[in-house]
Amino acid sequence: MDILIRDATIITQDRQRRILKGDILVRNNRIAGLGKKGGDKAEFTIDARNKLAIPGLINMHAHMAMSLFRGYGEGLPLERWLEEKVWPMEAKETPADAFIATQLALLEAIRSGTTAFNDMCIMGAKEIAKASDKAGVRSHVCQGILDLLPGRALDTELKTMERCAYPPGKLSSFGVAPHSAYTCSEELLIKAKEFATRRKLRIHTHAAETRKEVFDVQKKTGKRVMEYLDGLGLVGESSIFAHCGWVTKKEISTAGKKRLNVVHCPVSNLKLATGGICPITEFDREGANVCIGTDSAASNNSLNMLESVKMAALLQKHRYWKADILGAQRVLDFATLNGARALGVDCGRIEEGALADIVLLEKGPNMVPSHDIVSNVVYAANPSNVSDVIIDGRLVMENKEIKTMDEAAVIQEAEELAKEMEKR
Amino acid sequence: MDILIRDATIITQDRQRRILKGDILVRNNRIAGLGKKGGDKAEFTIDARNKLAIPGLINMHAHMAMSLFRGYGEGLPLERWLEEKVWPMEAKETPADAFIATQLALLEAIRSGTTAFNDMCIMGAKEIAKASDKAGVRSHVCQGILDLLPGRALDTELKTMERCAYPPGKLSSFGVAPHSAYTCSEELLIKAKEFATRRKLRIHTHAAETRKEVFDVQKKTGKRVMEYLDGLGLVGESSIFAHCGWVTKKEISTAGKKRLNVVHCPVSNLKLATGGICPITEFDREGANVCIGTDSAASNNSLNMLESVKMAALLQKHRYWKADILGAQRVLDFATLNGARALGVDCGRIEEGALADIVLLEKGPNMVPSHDIVSNVVYAANPSNVSDVIIDGRLVMENKEIKTMDEAAVIQEAEELAKEMEKR
Repeated sequence: MDILIRDATIITQDRQRRILKGDILVRNNRIAGLGKKGGDKAEFTIDARNKLAIPGLINMHAHMAMSLFRGYGEGLPLERWLEEKVWPMEAKETPADAFIATQLALLEAIRSGTTAFNDMCIMGAKEIAKASDKAGVRSHVCQGILDLLPGRALDTELKTMERCAYPPGKLSSFGVAPHSAYTCSEELLIKAKEFATRRKLRIHTHAAETRKEVFDVQKKTGKRVMEYLDGLGLVGESSIFAHCGWVTKKEISTAGKKRLNVVHCPVSNLKLATGGICPITEFDREGANVCIGTDSAASNNSLNMLESVKMAALLQKHRYWKADILGAQRVLDFATLNGARALGVDCGRIEEGALADIVLLEKGPNMVPSHDIVSNVVYAANPSNVSDVIIDGRLVMENKEIKTMDEAAVIQEAEELAKEMEKR
Repeated sequence: MDILIRDATIITQDRQRRILKGDILVRNNRIAGLGKKGGDKAEFTIDARNKLAIPGLINMHAHMAMSLFRGYGEGLPLERWLEEKVWPMEAKETPADAFIATQLALLEAIRSGTTAFNDMCIMGAKEIAKASDKAGVRSHVCQGILDLLPGRALDTELKTMERCAYPPGKLSSFGVAPHSAYTCSEELLIKAKEFATRRKLRIHTHAAETRKEVFDVQKKTGKRVMEYLDGLGLVGESSIFAHCGWVTKKEISTAGKKRLNVVHCPVSNLKLATGGICPITEFDREGANVCIGTDSAASNNSLNMLESVKMAALLQKHRYWKADILGAQRVLDFATLNGARALGVDCGRIEEGALADIVLLEKGPNMVPSHDIVSNVVYAANPSNVSDVIIDGRLVMENKEIKTMDEAAVIQEAEELAKEMEKR
């Protein structure tokens, strides 16, 4: 179906970062025309006179199947929360549960302007991708592997890994996720890298999230986390490292030189009190590809990318005691252009020829006046402004109504499943 | 008009912090019944089966008339932003402009679950109160005075002060706002205190927001900000101090003993890169009355209390590197019960006899599952969940439609006014 978005204010995210007034024509799954007025006709037209069009936000670190654990075990110290609550619940989750949990997560993601996400899961990769394909949301789903926790072993993890290179779905693709430098043996990390290279897959891992991790890795290997992973060949353009909050200038420089994809998850880092704020300003300057993520609803407790984008911008100002260290435009780049680059997908911008992943934002009272439209998106927008979402040319949400899932049914199913899981 | 809210999940904020399932009957401007099922009839009924009822949030530090400066001069360093952009624009604003700016701010406030606010303005106090009364939002509006900036003098500020004890409106009351310890002379601060005591008004000021302020006050007076203001009699139950980010343990103890109202504005502090995070956990423990505020749309850039509540909780975890330092329940107390206490208004809780200031939140996908409802409100809710707002027994927003203002007209007027002001 062709879609004509009429009279929008368009934040293009093109090379010149132009802001245009006009129409966007979506044909098949791509943007076929931009900025024209009146000329084109389409089967479906959206009146966007009071709307901003932005490229869909790309959530570069999520655990969608954990949405059922939102608020579970709240208020406990971190270790007890993980050991007594989250991990036992996670161990009970089946692939069928992951399908439902992902549907719930997708509803929230769409409603906060997200059109693509990069996931890490411990099981259910196929179901997560299936739910995403069904919902019409772009996904990159990475099978988690780890052999240093009780009940885990290298050989079984390697088998899991070998199985996870599923053929891509309509909007889904797959990657491999060695969990971290402290939960994976050196051998598993090396094998994961070899496997990823052989199968042309991306690697997705957690790195330098907590001080404890830095101490432990240093004690075991004599190296800082990024140095250690670099020594094993994992730092590079096809790797996605989440967190990177506790890094040295040398590590930042290495990440920059090797064009690593670095994902900052500001809200989750604060909620888990990890202490270190990812120095995205420095990573960006050194040449790393900085992206933004929410992490899971268990540690955020939302999947609201608009919030994470704002927090990413605010925390840099706070970290350096400098209000103008990082502009709103650059942070929006991280959440759009850079996410697309990390995933190797031709989206993240509203330009002729690009894939049509577009979010429309209503100009509610919180988006007025229009002194600086990009600043309004980064600092003032919230999910109540998200009105329409188009992904791969398909209208996934129209005027705040989700078109690709039965929202009420998913919510009820998720609510009941979460209760039932507690009793398992 | 009587209003019956049926079958809600009610976060009462009563002494036992009970969560009830049932009805809320609103008669005249108070809560007349709670938790009953089916019995009562009312002229107007809201089906709240899929909704949470919470006491309205109280924004304890705002500058509503600055909403027109949202995003203006974005990206400049702090001093240049103030001197070249915000102050010149503010100087151009008339009381009539403040009325429009406040209406815009009120729309945003209502849509993010706010039912009362404490304001500081440099002019237009009557218009701000008038706009609030008209919109049906509770307000406490404080006339700002300051005599240490160019163009200001003690005698004229004292005259301004004397004029500002307007008789209260339907939902509005007035206070006096000596701007800060660094912009007011000692004599003005003393006179403001005497005036407030004589007229039984509250004092609203900025305190210990930046390091520079602390250095400057210490250089001038030999004392830390809170000590200095305490020496002048300003620290007490009828004073409201915004920010308090740079304080010593001794100052926290003084504030606690004197039951000072301390307002944390986490988002604004980050955006302006003030560096210091208000130690609300310690203030609370020592006996101060901790509240939450957004500050202005020029420095936030939103008036979204749900966001500021979440950030207040997150920043404590970050400040102390301790995930369980401050529970969601206590932070919700700050934004409801404590705000009501600071303003001396019988609201902030859903109990029989209390004023009916109630917000209904839809359980969207971001509020599911219901493992911990209070945690969901604090960490997961956003303005898209706010469906109905009742203030003083009046339905101000019904099913996301504002009933007391012409929203589209206000938005258009504000947009045009902001453009016109730039050219003045």
